[in-house]
Amino acid sequence: MPEQRVRIGLLGRGTVGGAFAELLEQRAGAVEAATGRRPELGGVLTRSGGDPGEILGSSDVIVELMGGIDPAREHVLSALRSGIPVVTANKQLLAQHGDELFEAARASGVQLRFEAAVAGVIPIIRVIQESFGVTEITKVFGIVNGTTNFVLSEMAATGAAYDDVLARAQELGYAEADPTEDVNGADAAAKMAILARLAFHTPVTLSEVGYEGIERVKPDDLAYAKELGLSLKLLGVAERRDGGLSVRVFPCFLYPRHPLAPVEGPFNAVMVQAPAITEITMSGPGAGGIETASAVLGDVVSILSGRAPVHAAREPLEIVRDISSSFYLHLEVADRPGVLARIAEVLGRNEVSVRSVVQRGLGDDARLVMVMHEGLEARFFKALEEIATLDFLRAQPRAIRVIEEEFV
Amino acid sequence: MPEQRVRIGLLGRGTVGGAFAELLEQRAGAVEAATGRRPELGGVLTRSGGDPGEILGSSDVIVELMGGIDPAREHVLSALRSGIPVVTANKQLLAQHGDELFEAARASGVQLRFEAAVAGVIPIIRVIQESFGVTEITKVFGIVNGTTNFVLSEMAATGAAYDDVLARAQELGYAEADPTEDVNGADAAAKMAILARLAFHTPVTLSEVGYEGIERVKPDDLAYAKELGLSLKLLGVAERRDGGLSVRVFPCFLYPRHPLAPVEGPFNAVMVQAPAITEITMSGPGAGGIETASAVLGDVVSILSGRAPVHAAREPLEIVRDISSSFYLHLEVADRPGVLARIAEVLGRNEVSVRSVVQRGLGDDARLVMVMHEGLEARFFKALEEIATLDFLRAQPRAIRVIEEEFV
Repeated sequence: MPEQRVRIGLLGRGTVGGAFAELLEQRAGAVEAATGRRPELGGVLTRSGGDPGEILGSSDVIVELMGGIDPAREHVLSALRSGIPVVTANKQLLAQHGDELFEAARASGVQLRFEAAVAGVIPIIRVIQESFGVTEITKVFGIVNGTTNFVLSEMAATGAAYDDVLARAQELGYAEADPTEDVNGADAAAKMAILARLAFHTPVTLSEVGYEGIERVKPDDLAYAKELGLSLKLLGVAERRDGGLSVRVFPCFLYPRHPLAPVEGPFNAVMVQAPAITEITMSGPGAGGIETASAVLGDVVSILSGRAPVHAAREPLEIVRDISSSFYLHLEVADRPGVLARIAEVLGRNEVSVRSVVQRGLGDDARLVMVMHEGLEARFFKALEEIATLDFLRAQPRAIRVIEEEFV
Repeated sequence: MPEQRVRIGLLGRGTVGGAFAELLEQRAGAVEAATGRRPELGGVLTRSGGDPGEILGSSDVIVELMGGIDPAREHVLSALRSGIPVVTANKQLLAQHGDELFEAARASGVQLRFEAAVAGVIPIIRVIQESFGVTEITKVFGIVNGTTNFVLSEMAATGAAYDDVLARAQELGYAEADPTEDVNGADAAAKMAILARLAFHTPVTLSEVGYEGIERVKPDDLAYAKELGLSLKLLGVAERRDGGLSVRVFPCFLYPRHPLAPVEGPFNAVMVQAPAITEITMSGPGAGGIETASAVLGDVVSILSGRAPVHAAREPLEIVRDISSSFYLHLEVADRPGVLARIAEVLGRNEVSVRSVVQRGLGDDARLVMVMHEGLEARFFKALEEIATLDFLRAQPRAIRVIEEEFV
């Protein structure tokens, strides 16, 4: 019997692409043992060389690691439409053009796999699609951006300011030269769009994910949090709410017993909740080159093993926008009579209920730190807008969500 | 096009079997949406009714939830040999007769799936087999028995004695009426045999797994541990050592930053380490009826989706028995001159190196708590045997392993 060879076409040979090419050669024997077919690197498209048409024409599987929307989108679509299965780590491509890509894969009956696009080495895509593919998931949430988690952990540990910590993260290689998409939440939002699509069988795109970043977090916020035993994380949350689906990214305080509270440094962690499983938590390092390459190779093996997960939307959910949350509110105000009463009046009129207040004098000024009971976000933001106009305010008010639920 | 129906034959209708039958009916639509085939419950074998031959003859998939070795083994083998795929949650069957079962599945080219056999709702089987199927895993370890983790957590939290806590666990339903296999480590050992087989592509059976339980743990041990910031867990560990494979279950102290240290109560958690992934940690509640049923249903869906993971042994490893560990040693001795010197002499002669000693007077007696540097276990046990014969000893010496490695 002649040996069965599989040609892998590689689009992009940067850090991850290079690591993948090396790993593929190293583990070719193991892949053959597992699938009966020995993979070998076929054509490679780089910035300076390679012909996309020729590579597609001579490949059994395409691995897209070039990143960006164009021309990655065009190449992936061509491959899928020609009946060639694709593995990609390109979260922005999936989050922005998922409908088109999944439709092309379905129409041709070939696989599109993307474990490496979300949460580093944590195999959350496979677990959601396959282990919990028929489970009625109620919530998927977690820390899906290692850069911001590193920055927040360092700020909490050292008391240093955001800009200083970010510079340190860049030195250590935990943040890119241009960290905009990490720190403003866009990277996490793309990942949550992908997870929400799979977990809730609903076509979610990036534009439907509300996101906030960590740029405005102050050492003060972390110092108060520490006093209260809270830790601050940038959370991505996709959950059933009011019969629909809410997908968001926001900085959030966690109580100490929360399973995500101990996740520190450039780590990722994702939780899945459903009545039939209660919940699971998966954590691991955010992806470096070799970790991402390893996730890509796992997808290649799955393709060679012949199984196609189904990406069809089933009973898609509506996107819900106004949901209930609990907030922490940090105010710097003039220290004079009637200030607290005035703020309480604005909150009360907007049906925002206060859970705790700590007031501290700062010379002529005072600092008020309040935690609210859970309530509709629109009401809180309306109150916040009014508070921001009060003449005794000494700085912009700062609001951060708080998650209070105890680990079941 | 006529609807494609799949008949599921169910062997055993206890807690898990009943929950599975209910879940199957509830989620039949979702299974059909995901796989294109609608499952329905076919024949059911109970203690009082059902004909195994008839059920096998009329089923497309067999779900074995009766437990025990006989007659489950015979039924599962018959099904596999007749070309019927099987899902089982029976860890003892897999740990004791894995070779035979996997060989039967391979020979017929049908799937044998068993996610529910290990670690409750944590999809560790799928992750090891599929996500990391061609990854060179170096270590799989964790807390794979919820009963013992509950007992140890309670002992640590309340200072209560083993017997009292075990009785409480039985009241709460966290321990069975006969908890022998849980507390003596046999249950965890069976799970580790299964995980080791998959992670290391080596035919491991229960008889090759060394195990110790928690029956001899004293409130004292936990009190000292607390002082040192350690937590005590029953760990299952399967790892490459000295070019071979070591698979063991033992109670063990963990340093506070270890990712398994915060896992409390009836929870399970498993870590997988490999150079290409660094490590991942997965945690969740130990399985109740609905959680186990949910894992079984996930396996049924995988079978209907048509993919067969490969169970063949590839470059199997030798089982290694004498490995290096670090130990805590608790001694109660007469409080007289020369005692510590005599113990130190025995340890030194056996090349066991002491890392720390705490001595406390107890009237005429003294308590010595020592922590050793890592060294070959055989040497430590030889020293321990000698120490046990010393005439100034007031109680049996107690030894517990310590894991010191920091989270990477």
